[in-house]
Amino acid sequence: DKAFLTALRKLRFSCDVDALPEGTLVFPYAPLLRVKGPILQCQLLETALLNIVNAQTLFTTKAARIASAAEGDPVLEFGMRRAHSLEAALWASRSAYIGGFASTSNSAAAVRYGIPVSGTHAHSWVMAFDNEKEAFARYADSLPDRCTLLVDTYDTLKGVQHAIEIAHAMKAKGASLFGIRIDSGDLAYYSQRARAMLDKADLSDVHIIASGDLDEHLIQSLKQQKACIRIWGVGTRLSTAFDDPSLGGVYKMSAIQSPNGWRPTLKVSSSNDKIGIPGCLQLRRFTNKEGQLVCDMIYEEHKPLPARLTLLHPQDPSRQKRIHVRNYQSQDLLVPVFRKGKAVYTPPPLTETRQHAAQQLSTLDTHVRRLINPHLYPVGLEENLHQLRTHMIYKIRGVK
Amino acid sequence: DKAFLTALRKLRFSCDVDALPEGTLVFPYAPLLRVKGPILQCQLLETALLNIVNAQTLFTTKAARIASAAEGDPVLEFGMRRAHSLEAALWASRSAYIGGFASTSNSAAAVRYGIPVSGTHAHSWVMAFDNEKEAFARYADSLPDRCTLLVDTYDTLKGVQHAIEIAHAMKAKGASLFGIRIDSGDLAYYSQRARAMLDKADLSDVHIIASGDLDEHLIQSLKQQKACIRIWGVGTRLSTAFDDPSLGGVYKMSAIQSPNGWRPTLKVSSSNDKIGIPGCLQLRRFTNKEGQLVCDMIYEEHKPLPARLTLLHPQDPSRQKRIHVRNYQSQDLLVPVFRKGKAVYTPPPLTETRQHAAQQLSTLDTHVRRLINPHLYPVGLEENLHQLRTHMIYKIRGVK
Repeated sequence: DKAFLTALRKLRFSCDVDALPEGTLVFPYAPLLRVKGPILQCQLLETALLNIVNAQTLFTTKAARIASAAEGDPVLEFGMRRAHSLEAALWASRSAYIGGFASTSNSAAAVRYGIPVSGTHAHSWVMAFDNEKEAFARYADSLPDRCTLLVDTYDTLKGVQHAIEIAHAMKAKGASLFGIRIDSGDLAYYSQRARAMLDKADLSDVHIIASGDLDEHLIQSLKQQKACIRIWGVGTRLSTAFDDPSLGGVYKMSAIQSPNGWRPTLKVSSSNDKIGIPGCLQLRRFTNKEGQLVCDMIYEEHKPLPARLTLLHPQDPSRQKRIHVRNYQSQDLLVPVFRKGKAVYTPPPLTETRQHAAQQLSTLDTHVRRLINPHLYPVGLEENLHQLRTHMIYKIRGVK
Repeated sequence: DKAFLTALRKLRFSCDVDALPEGTLVFPYAPLLRVKGPILQCQLLETALLNIVNAQTLFTTKAARIASAAEGDPVLEFGMRRAHSLEAALWASRSAYIGGFASTSNSAAAVRYGIPVSGTHAHSWVMAFDNEKEAFARYADSLPDRCTLLVDTYDTLKGVQHAIEIAHAMKAKGASLFGIRIDSGDLAYYSQRARAMLDKADLSDVHIIASGDLDEHLIQSLKQQKACIRIWGVGTRLSTAFDDPSLGGVYKMSAIQSPNGWRPTLKVSSSNDKIGIPGCLQLRRFTNKEGQLVCDMIYEEHKPLPARLTLLHPQDPSRQKRIHVRNYQSQDLLVPVFRKGKAVYTPPPLTETRQHAAQQLSTLDTHVRRLINPHLYPVGLEENLHQLRTHMIYKIRGVK
């Protein structure tokens, strides 16, 4: 009702929020956020925070997978028309850039976030002229510095031939054609045919850009088939996270303040994967002397830790990892973002966030980075926390 | 660059836009929108219009499928935390309501669009108290008129028992418990157990609400298993359109003005499903005397039509439907929304849009409404349009 809404609008949030810096690698079970404050405030933040963190983590993850499959080739983000709202399109563009994409065709995102913008003309450009060659010529005149011609409006190979003629005309004027784009048909076949035609015409510097429902799996397959594609346009499958469009982050009360200090709380459920983790949690990452990631530990902050740690998988306590602290570097990943409702964290420029993500990915074992059936990166509960959790589950379920 | 951006901001759109009224049933190949105007303006509108139309059509379609599986039971929308942005969550809530959902738990959407709001307490409510029964009692005190208790924080059947005790206490005070909600575990089993416990306790008027990664297929399965669920909470799978998260609407130039009038244009592609439809198109829907939908016809507006029509499937011309106009009622579905850049359409209240959608669905053959392998509703090109298109494809491909 209105009185309640008015009261809400006047509410001044006084929560403490800790979070992982953007671009930090995360794995299942790891806490991404920690909110501490009056229960009403924490509750009001729940759904908006989950929406923001889930969606952007999802897009960035998908982008990193796609960029990884492209093996260093530039990937252009083309997904706005299929994103789930205008804001989702902006988030997808920004997240894609963090995850390793080179640019976006969403000019609003480019302006707002300072992301490089790129794209080609539409099929309608070609259809607006009497014939394809005239359309190409006019486009080359208007954009001689970075001209990419879309060759598949009518007949892909004829389009390539027209583009070759334009490229020669541009050369005669001291300009050069940047690339051609193929948006339909058999991309392996057409890219190889087009490459051969371009090379034969002494145009080996003209790039071939491909698009059309691409994702990491198709890019990997095209690479294996030696498709002659060196720039990739990815839209729908990035901006909808097509094959797994929901990232299941949840927001659970894990401790409540009592006269005796923080009392851990736990939701137990008949679905084991919906059981929470109790306590005031922090996430610590261990790195070896070569800078490679070793494991992540979830533990109760402000509790003393032994020098030899044992981490236990939250669902399967027989999966354990033992580490001696002195052999590794370690870092707590949740950092203060708000203190008593005031922002205390200054986000770095987006390019730094993108570099941070790339640097983190480079420290990850290649088997963990594999796109299908990856080796599981160890994320475990510190032994005391695991015991606390097990004890609470057993107590709630009334078993010994 | 900045000068271009400034020029864009000053641009006054002068397009004519025709569209299907919201809540109108649409089928593959049907044009949902028609934009007529200077080519630059039409091009600038492309991606935003596609984003808006694709996403909302997708959410509404998914919602209608889910509501249909619920067979008249209320379905509550719980999807904000997994939607692809805050705006996507608002769109999903609004679209879900149009598609037949009863309410949303997104209070911002409820306020903005006037959608009924509903929800239950969170698990954290229970965890904030020393024990579940106390938590339930306090919640019933604060919300006696529409109290739903979430029973699966610790142990579902014990939770049901506690809810029964609260319901009796409420009865003694002249109030009544509205329902219990089960959010995890085997929903068929727990709902039947809970129903039996409630009935035995003389609480057959207490509703059972279920949630937890539900979609139309799970709801249908639970119905077949005679799960005792009469209200359904659906979140993630609605707000991400989980199993098919992209609706592939495209925006193609289909005609260009020339000194001799409108000249049809066509994009031909090596992928046959990416070939457009040429001309200034309109969509006409035929209805029989009982008010049931018969077919949709795509045709060139302002071209004379014979009294006996033949419709041809765009991909398979051997699939034809012949109709005699006088036997049916018919209606052109694209209606003016903008004329010379000015809005000329007044959207009806959302409740009317929702009724319109429900009314349309009720006129559709049940085999077409089937969730899996539905009978295909006939959408065809009018014969002359089909001939024009075939002729253009053959000409562009250089075959006879």
